[in-house]
Amino acid sequence: MADEQSLPERPKDAPAAAAPPTEGAAAAAEGEDKGPSKSALKKLAKEKEKAEKAAKRAAEEAARKKESEANDVSAENYGELPMIRESTGVEHRRLEDLREKYDGKDFGGEGGEGVAGIGPEVVFRAAVENARNQSAKLSFLVFAQGHSTIQAVVAASDTLSRQMVKFAGSIPTESEVIVHGRLGKPREPVKSTTIQNLEVHVNKLYILCKADAQLPLQVADAEGRIPAEGEENAVREDGKPIVSLHARLTNRTIDLKANLNHAIFKVKYGVQKLFTEFLDERGFLLMNSPRLLGAASEGGANVFEVKYFNSKAYLAQSPQLYKQMMIAARFERVMEIGPIFRAENSNTARHLTEFTGLDLEMAFEEHYHEVVTLIENLMLHIFEGLRTRYAKETELVRSVYQVEEFKLPQSGKVPRLHFKEGIQMLRDAGEEVADFDDLSTPQEKKLGALVLEKYGSDFYVLDQYPLAIRPFYTMPSKESQANYDPKDPNAGYSNSYDFFMRGQEIMSGAQRIHNATYLEKRMREHVTPVDPQSDGLRDYVNAFRYGCPPHAGGGIGLERIVMLYLGLPNIRLASLYPRDPSRLIP
Amino acid sequence: MADEQSLPERPKDAPAAAAPPTEGAAAAAEGEDKGPSKSALKKLAKEKEKAEKAAKRAAEEAARKKESEANDVSAENYGELPMIRESTGVEHRRLEDLREKYDGKDFGGEGGEGVAGIGPEVVFRAAVENARNQSAKLSFLVFAQGHSTIQAVVAASDTLSRQMVKFAGSIPTESEVIVHGRLGKPREPVKSTTIQNLEVHVNKLYILCKADAQLPLQVADAEGRIPAEGEENAVREDGKPIVSLHARLTNRTIDLKANLNHAIFKVKYGVQKLFTEFLDERGFLLMNSPRLLGAASEGGANVFEVKYFNSKAYLAQSPQLYKQMMIAARFERVMEIGPIFRAENSNTARHLTEFTGLDLEMAFEEHYHEVVTLIENLMLHIFEGLRTRYAKETELVRSVYQVEEFKLPQSGKVPRLHFKEGIQMLRDAGEEVADFDDLSTPQEKKLGALVLEKYGSDFYVLDQYPLAIRPFYTMPSKESQANYDPKDPNAGYSNSYDFFMRGQEIMSGAQRIHNATYLEKRMREHVTPVDPQSDGLRDYVNAFRYGCPPHAGGGIGLERIVMLYLGLPNIRLASLYPRDPSRLIP
Repeated sequence: MADEQSLPERPKDAPAAAAPPTEGAAAAAEGEDKGPSKSALKKLAKEKEKAEKAAKRAAEEAARKKESEANDVSAENYGELPMIRESTGVEHRRLEDLREKYDGKDFGGEGGEGVAGIGPEVVFRAAVENARNQSAKLSFLVFAQGHSTIQAVVAASDTLSRQMVKFAGSIPTESEVIVHGRLGKPREPVKSTTIQNLEVHVNKLYILCKADAQLPLQVADAEGRIPAEGEENAVREDGKPIVSLHARLTNRTIDLKANLNHAIFKVKYGVQKLFTEFLDERGFLLMNSPRLLGAASEGGANVFEVKYFNSKAYLAQSPQLYKQMMIAARFERVMEIGPIFRAENSNTARHLTEFTGLDLEMAFEEHYHEVVTLIENLMLHIFEGLRTRYAKETELVRSVYQVEEFKLPQSGKVPRLHFKEGIQMLRDAGEEVADFDDLSTPQEKKLGALVLEKYGSDFYVLDQYPLAIRPFYTMPSKESQANYDPKDPNAGYSNSYDFFMRGQEIMSGAQRIHNATYLEKRMREHVTPVDPQSDGLRDYVNAFRYGCPPHAGGGIGLERIVMLYLGLPNIRLASLYPRDPSRLIP
Repeated sequence: MADEQSLPERPKDAPAAAAPPTEGAAAAAEGEDKGPSKSALKKLAKEKEKAEKAAKRAAEEAARKKESEANDVSAENYGELPMIRESTGVEHRRLEDLREKYDGKDFGGEGGEGVAGIGPEVVFRAAVENARNQSAKLSFLVFAQGHSTIQAVVAASDTLSRQMVKFAGSIPTESEVIVHGRLGKPREPVKSTTIQNLEVHVNKLYILCKADAQLPLQVADAEGRIPAEGEENAVREDGKPIVSLHARLTNRTIDLKANLNHAIFKVKYGVQKLFTEFLDERGFLLMNSPRLLGAASEGGANVFEVKYFNSKAYLAQSPQLYKQMMIAARFERVMEIGPIFRAENSNTARHLTEFTGLDLEMAFEEHYHEVVTLIENLMLHIFEGLRTRYAKETELVRSVYQVEEFKLPQSGKVPRLHFKEGIQMLRDAGEEVADFDDLSTPQEKKLGALVLEKYGSDFYVLDQYPLAIRPFYTMPSKESQANYDPKDPNAGYSNSYDFFMRGQEIMSGAQRIHNATYLEKRMREHVTPVDPQSDGLRDYVNAFRYGCPPHAGGGIGLERIVMLYLGLPNIRLASLYPRDPSRLIP
């Protein structure tokens, strides 16, 4: 190196490669031909000195570390593991199994006075929920695995070094680790963990995946509720911040680590299980219909358009037409669970642009109320299943959001109101509403409150909606069909129904028109007319020319059920990675 | 009407409104002011005469009908029902229940010599599979309900008119009807129906939905196979036409009425049930991840673009990144069933642009083979469930497509080959293939045949794929990770695997990189580099900064399993309404 010879004051013992030449040094070297200026030389000398000091420090540190490791009796028992491990066949335990087997056990008389007995040696994988150095000789950790948490102690001894104690107490929260240790009974029950009468005396501790020291959101904070309106920047009763919905969704993967969210999504899966199990027992076949459609078949509004090779496609707003075609194809009873896409520019607490639809459709024998009754019983089955099988999860969520229990009629009979009756109840309560108007969201909520008061139920059905406000495939009521005047907006009722929970709609459904000629007529006469012979509808209409039984069905919004059953204040909380007009990430 | 007075020869007894004036008459009337020409008058007269004759015929027909109805003892017992019926509460039976209860019964001694006894009166809803007038006094029908068919007789008697016999025998195939009748035992077992020792003596018959007389596809024809290559316009052994795939898919709703298709889609639902039930028992949570993504996150190729309000979105090619983020969010074990979109312009027998993905992802303790073993067992559970619970459906489909049974190793141990071993087997069989090349489809099929020969299994796993041909998130093998040179295409292997059925891939999976820093490095170095800090990937990469256990998983193509298990010649047959680059309808 050119600059080495020009600097005679360089000490011989400093390692040449200890520090790379700094930028300043390089600049000075480049200027050498013209002779360095005094100030440049001075600067250079200073930097050299600095580099030498750093090199010396590094060398000393390395020596210390080497010596320290040599003296560290635990050197092999802690540290970071390589990304890829060998299989040893050692059993890795589940904390939940340990709790079931050992929680509260005394582990015989191995321990001395005031010290609990020490149990078997176990190995498990877990996330670090908390880690702190109590003293140079003692660290406490909390390990989490699924919904279980356990306290652990790392105590210095002849066979466990202070270095390891320090390492353990300094592991960043959320790091994934492998723990070896003996089980023991804590002197007093641990209050901050789910496993309270069992702790781990760690003797080996390895990091599998080290988390950043600073996370953008604390899991503990995510365990709380979102702020109510006007409550921004408030703190919780326990002093923790009330994290905004926006901050949660932006850091959704951390947010989802919270037990609160695990509970919500267990319930969400539960609803799907209960839905499928009830319908499966009754002969429904699960179908998988396309989401990519050749035409915007249900009227064209609120449809997402897709570039499809050199052409266009549209995302399904529902499996409606396909469900009905399946009935025409003799399938009799079908269900489907799948994503539903709605290009509605609604930024409300109850709208998503993508949600999960629970759909069903069935042929009936005589009257569409056969189907309404079946869906009522389906919902009761779901509510009952949630109450009995998901009590713990429900309780956790409701305790955070302070929501009342979901009430069902004691008689077991779901209130089923004619639309007229609903209008009358609203009028009696002072609401102004026309006979054949659709209900506004506040009116729906008000009617929900009135029904709860009168029938003691948070769940009810509003039947016989006005024909004019329902889709073209809706079967008019018997009276409307006989006297129907398409130009009259007060054209009467239809064999259609909405289901409500806590005054909010969770399902829309109806008897469908199964006669092709009449269906075509209704398509042309509808408020939003559609062309029965267009690409997206021709096959649908024709399906009824090939024979089809009378049928009815409905589409339930899964996130709506979860939100309303648990009493969540925003539907986004019931979606893992929610989509709305302004959110597509993460 | 102006023309009425100008035509004195009009007979007084012809009803004025019997026939509307024809176009010719109207034209003549318009020309009246100028005085009609001779030829026009002649034409007019001829048309009048024609109209009068028609009117007379109509009047006579109406009179005959009226008289006939008056004399028709069965007038109330047949005809078309209105679209909307009242609920009577009459029990409508299922044919399958009738078969279970009565098939083969003699029904006591009510019948005379040579005539079987007559059983109870039943009512049921069904589709007409066949109807023919045997004579003026006797019609035979076959009714279908789900997968059951039953023969019915409509015989003229004192209480059943010849008009009704004629009506019954003339109902268009596929019409939906309500049948009232008494059960009876046929003199000989009926060979053409599924219920062979039971028939219906019809006494009332109503059409619920009348099908067109001419259908574009016969259901009976749809029961056969599609043509093999070069077999267009051929006929089946039984003389029925071999309907092309195109004709079936164009008339898919009729096609789906076939028992063949009912069997296929029962099996498809079965696979989903077996998948969920196996994983549910092992603690997997069903997740619902978004299909609308803010960025084309997996490399950008083969992604459908969506207009999303004033911006763009992309359709998910897999739930890959979301599954992994769920693992980072402490969910440990997740599964998902949902649509997968691939904008591949491949018009092959095994590609769809939209298919159903069965996805799973799980944290493991030490080695990714824990996951491979679990997925192997999952597949064995599915195969075993199909074999035992769906034997009838499988047999039906395989009898049509003449496919051999799906073979599994007698030892119960799934062959799991190192990629090297697969290459060696191919070379030993004379195939030219480089160490680190991906296999072509013919090579895959050949290897499948070699594995079947050697291990007696149609199902096997190829493990340790070359790193260079796998996605960026794939964990290199231990050796490759240590010595990895990104510029070397022969960079070694990876902890990844494909699952095969009958020599075709049904699943791709791998251990994933759970270290954010290393993942970023791999993203940049990949054959198709991606930007770790781009919108679609930033949150994904960061998820591993917040702590994440080592994990692996895979994505199974549902339609592939169905196709290969049943031996269907084209994947479109395993999709209700398939989507490919040239088909979006119906």
